[in-house]
Amino acid sequence: MTTGRILHLLPVSLGDSPLQDWLPESVRATAARLDTYIAENAKTGRAFLKQIGTIRPIQDITIHTLSPRTPPAEMRQWLAALPDSGEIGLVSEAGCPAVADPGAHVVALAHQLNITVRPWVGPSSILLGLMASGLSGQQFAFHGYAPIDAAARAKTLKLWETHSARHQQTQMLIETPYRNMAMLATLLSSLKGDTRLCVARALTTPQEYVMTRTVAEWQRTPPPELDKQPTLFLFLARA
Amino acid sequence: MTTGRILHLLPVSLGDSPLQDWLPESVRATAARLDTYIAENAKTGRAFLKQIGTIRPIQDITIHTLSPRTPPAEMRQWLAALPDSGEIGLVSEAGCPAVADPGAHVVALAHQLNITVRPWVGPSSILLGLMASGLSGQQFAFHGYAPIDAAARAKTLKLWETHSARHQQTQMLIETPYRNMAMLATLLSSLKGDTRLCVARALTTPQEYVMTRTVAEWQRTPPPELDKQPTLFLFLARA
Repeated sequence: MTTGRILHLLPVSLGDSPLQDWLPESVRATAARLDTYIAENAKTGRAFLKQIGTIRPIQDITIHTLSPRTPPAEMRQWLAALPDSGEIGLVSEAGCPAVADPGAHVVALAHQLNITVRPWVGPSSILLGLMASGLSGQQFAFHGYAPIDAAARAKTLKLWETHSARHQQTQMLIETPYRNMAMLATLLSSLKGDTRLCVARALTTPQEYVMTRTVAEWQRTPPPELDKQPTLFLFLARA
Repeated sequence: MTTGRILHLLPVSLGDSPLQDWLPESVRATAARLDTYIAENAKTGRAFLKQIGTIRPIQDITIHTLSPRTPPAEMRQWLAALPDSGEIGLVSEAGCPAVADPGAHVVALAHQLNITVRPWVGPSSILLGLMASGLSGQQFAFHGYAPIDAAARAKTLKLWETHSARHQQTQMLIETPYRNMAMLATLLSSLKGDTRLCVARALTTPQEYVMTRTVAEWQRTPPPELDKQPTLFLFLARA
């Protein structure tokens, strides 16, 4: 039996950019009226609440902090405490909650507890990067991080390239921002010359940069500045 | 040398819902001032322009129609005709352009012609479904359509399930809306009982429905009504 309880999945910004650039007004208004949140990071959670202009003072809003080490029993308590017709918001550290962050566990519990899950529109570097890449959006895979060990990393990238060629599937990965330049160098030394590689940096911010070139073309070009800036790497191998 | 030309990637609605629910104000304002568009479907393109309230009368806006059969030379002409600092919009039939539609070719040409590609935030059933599923957002793959032939379809679903178990990768697929009920039945007869399956229907509209259950639980439950409603199917197999 449904009791009208709702878990709202609320996207936050990808960087320093005005609210009206990246959040629909209804999403802002919904986020502004909630009195309970689950946030991956309480500090960025409060920054988001400040930006959207909450109806209540921020100190009157409950924020549960979620980490990859939060026990499932604790997450379950947060949700089970919702009264009939109660609502709670979930926010990640950047972008859309439950994509490449621990929020997915909270969402899974909500389904188990028959709480309605409502996803709201907002920025996702994965989706924006895919759109802007010009690579195939018919089939694609997001892998998160590549292995750290150099040999395993090169081997894995080549494996993804083979899979990409066979299935015409765009491959997407991220890297810890201070290692972005090293990742670009590894991609250029591991992938085939005719594989198309897209670099999508700092999406939705004034530093936004998106460029797709073949690996051979990238090798002849001075690399873009990616150090410490959130970047998505995408590639599609020739069939 | 850049000449300040821009290709704007503008999301359109996923169904019948108010603009403020799914489009940030800056995206609306940007779309409203452009005088040239590339649209997958001229009729839905015009409906979008009407909804956002263009500055010019719609009949004064040029709309090039893009289909999977549009020759690349013709797409190139549309882009090459842009003057210095000229801007053009790309819209798909529903959701975000260049994801699961022919717009990716236009974006690829823009990169070749050194036209800046600017992706804007908006609704994507793939991303919203992934967020709301509670399945892994750390690794995921979108496959588009499964094979039509019954034997090939069941075999492919099982292959994706094996891949999902091995890599803990969420698998996503779509179906022609009038075949959704048959697809759900095939998923329930092909996948393992402990595989988690999410059905995400009519996202961002009043008919929105998202539910994640194990295949065994789905088999014991009356199926939701999916006929002729856009639906994303997602699953994650147990490791």
